[in-house]
Amino acid sequence: MLSNSQVKHINALKIKKYRDEYKEFIAEGNTLVTDLTKSSYEIAGVYALSEWITGNLDVIGHKNIPVYEADPADMERITSLSSPSPVLAIVKIPAGMAAGLDSAGYGSPEQNIPGLFEELSVMLEGISDPGNMGTLLRIADWFGIRNVICSETCVELYNPKVVQASMGSVARVSVFYTDLSRFLENLKGRLPVYGTFLQGDSIYSIPLENKGIILIGSEAHGISDPLSGFVTGRLYIPSFGSTDNGKAESLNAAVATAVVIAEFRRRGL
Amino acid sequence: MLSNSQVKHINALKIKKYRDEYKEFIAEGNTLVTDLTKSSYEIAGVYALSEWITGNLDVIGHKNIPVYEADPADMERITSLSSPSPVLAIVKIPAGMAAGLDSAGYGSPEQNIPGLFEELSVMLEGISDPGNMGTLLRIADWFGIRNVICSETCVELYNPKVVQASMGSVARVSVFYTDLSRFLENLKGRLPVYGTFLQGDSIYSIPLENKGIILIGSEAHGISDPLSGFVTGRLYIPSFGSTDNGKAESLNAAVATAVVIAEFRRRGL
Repeated sequence: MLSNSQVKHINALKIKKYRDEYKEFIAEGNTLVTDLTKSSYEIAGVYALSEWITGNLDVIGHKNIPVYEADPADMERITSLSSPSPVLAIVKIPAGMAAGLDSAGYGSPEQNIPGLFEELSVMLEGISDPGNMGTLLRIADWFGIRNVICSETCVELYNPKVVQASMGSVARVSVFYTDLSRFLENLKGRLPVYGTFLQGDSIYSIPLENKGIILIGSEAHGISDPLSGFVTGRLYIPSFGSTDNGKAESLNAAVATAVVIAEFRRRGL
Repeated sequence: MLSNSQVKHINALKIKKYRDEYKEFIAEGNTLVTDLTKSSYEIAGVYALSEWITGNLDVIGHKNIPVYEADPADMERITSLSSPSPVLAIVKIPAGMAAGLDSAGYGSPEQNIPGLFEELSVMLEGISDPGNMGTLLRIADWFGIRNVICSETCVELYNPKVVQASMGSVARVSVFYTDLSRFLENLKGRLPVYGTFLQGDSIYSIPLENKGIILIGSEAHGISDPLSGFVTGRLYIPSFGSTDNGKAESLNAAVATAVVIAEFRRRGL
């Protein structure tokens, strides 16, 4: 059985203020916790039903992870989900990575982001919905994108809804928060920057390199004017609907991102 | 100002039981209401702030739609959104279409669904999340898919969250609910049925016709075994991620659907 102070600590981590203070976040569910134990994240503690512990000794055994046995009533008290899962982990927020590029790092993004100049990376401006953010990380992961660079206006990576919606991709994709204008200013002329707009060149007809940045705008406003200025390749996903009664105005941000990245990857096949 | 009975009636329509009883649903927001007034849906009433009414006389004027002026406090009382919009409509659920194919219609789906044999249609099995359902309709609309055929286990089309997430696409895409096994049994040999799986032939290497059915499985379980038997083209979206630390297990249903439909449309360009 968990102590009241353990339950209180876990529940505090549902709130950003305490995640910032304790430098920890929570992850819930078998796949997510298992994926995190295999990643570079450090696990501060695993809270699980005895059956889960017995069945997952290989996952936790050799990693020196503190494990606390919980009963179903404990899991009810600490869950963020509509029905509690058999395992929840407290995970340490890494000091440098994903806590944001240090402001001293602005001038040399290539030193902070491995592979930036050789690969495709995704850049997110103002993604505010945690479910969208998690889905975007899952898409990046599926398509082998290692680095996701976020504006400081994006929802926090360690929001429990982002962590859950990423379905474990949070353990594999590196996420950086920074001032995108400064970042792109420093990259100018050194990497192509692709942006998705509601008009532009069809993604099926323009040349696409297999390195560079794919910039995705916010759900409500798309790519802002200041950042548009850095875009070297304006992409458009052709729409095929058109009835007397109009057509869909847009695709949602995650869906558009997936269609665009898939086309980059198809070209590279 | 709206009467208490008006407010009560609108709020009742947030619940499926009353939507079924009154054969009406609610739609909220300027774009959605405007799109619906241009569609074949019949509007039972529009409830709006006076500014909205003044600015939209062309939308409602020549259509004989009953319009009720509401004050901001009224809109607060009837909204389903986190902040109320200036307009909400009560819309009639059409008798045949989208209320489900009549069981008498099972034997001849071609009579019920215009264009079924000449076009691509989307078929959804067990999509339970209203946001996913709305997003799927928006994707179909964007890519010019007219018909969406749903299992009876899919979330109800007129659930307010589906209507909102569709961003007006509910006004343009025709949605049918039916027993998918019977439906596909009747179609056997007459149309290709494509299904997306976690393994199969890469969508980038197999032949794709520009007619047929694209079958999408549920968020949690994918395409069920009984329906898999009807699939003539097993599709797989290649994954490019693979680190020592595993990779994303899947894409979400809406994202996978968009990537697949985009590839069908690209081939047709």
